[in-house]
Amino acid sequence: MQLVRLVRILSSLPHLASFCSPFSSSAEGTARLLRVGAVLRESRRFSESDVVRYSEVSGDCNPVHFDDAFARTVAGFDGGRVVHGMLVASLFPSVIASHFPGAAYVSQTLTFKLPVYVGDEVLAEVQATYLRQYKNKYMVKFTTKCFTNEDSLVVEGEATTIIPTLTLCK
Amino acid sequence: MQLVRLVRILSSLPHLASFCSPFSSSAEGTARLLRVGAVLRESRRFSESDVVRYSEVSGDCNPVHFDDAFARTVAGFDGGRVVHGMLVASLFPSVIASHFPGAAYVSQTLTFKLPVYVGDEVLAEVQATYLRQYKNKYMVKFTTKCFTNEDSLVVEGEATTIIPTLTLCK
Repeated sequence: MQLVRLVRILSSLPHLASFCSPFSSSAEGTARLLRVGAVLRESRRFSESDVVRYSEVSGDCNPVHFDDAFARTVAGFDGGRVVHGMLVASLFPSVIASHFPGAAYVSQTLTFKLPVYVGDEVLAEVQATYLRQYKNKYMVKFTTKCFTNEDSLVVEGEATTIIPTLTLCK
Repeated sequence: MQLVRLVRILSSLPHLASFCSPFSSSAEGTARLLRVGAVLRESRRFSESDVVRYSEVSGDCNPVHFDDAFARTVAGFDGGRVVHGMLVASLFPSVIASHFPGAAYVSQTLTFKLPVYVGDEVLAEVQATYLRQYKNKYMVKFTTKCFTNEDSLVVEGEATTIIPTLTLCK
């Protein structure tokens, strides 16, 4: 039942995922391999419904996410209610796992520099800065950034992951 | 409509939140004030349904969260499918905001030390380590830890927040 639901999710996600050079080709000349410098991107617009659903599953019901007046007057968010920072940051493991299924998260640092408002277009960008073989897998470090309005840096940090292969699955 | 739904969420959350000394009393002798050393806790058990719902809203559909065999063989998670690390980490802003509505997150570091499996009882614990007045609010740093099986440290890090008052709302 849950698997059927997952298939539905996978086929209906509205996200746009893309990746950029530099990548290298494998020995067979077909598959692309992750290299230092490679950038993976995904864009997303969080709706009011997304914020409510995230509150339901996380239990984080801070009124700054639901009440425009409260968000402005108590928390100082001039644009009103904001998207949960950790929901915005969830784009980082999402974009990494979408290219490397089986990725395991080791660490993540996050600095929330500017608020993300409901309806903002968010671009998540991760860039590989370091990689080495780790047993039969690979440890990869990424810088992790989110932007709104094309160039406003709203979240930044660094992630360390273990990925099963350097071959991108898409 | 969304507000009605939020009220329903707030009244139905199954979480157990608690806090411990040291706290101080206010001048009126009734409200409790946050002080360095204070610990806030919340426990939670993430279900298969929680994992699916989190995948829906975050877009993170890594098969390590849905496929026991894949989680074991590809990612090396002996206990099978795991809860999203960022969902586990969402307990930190959740517990802080439940005591300080209007809290704004500045930063969070996270190290994922052990996997959390579906159904594990997770105890989130945040401890105030530093506070200072910041304009008409307060900047507070917390150590942030999650445990399973009572004493296994699964996630640790540090959060920096801006809270509107030192008075705990519950």
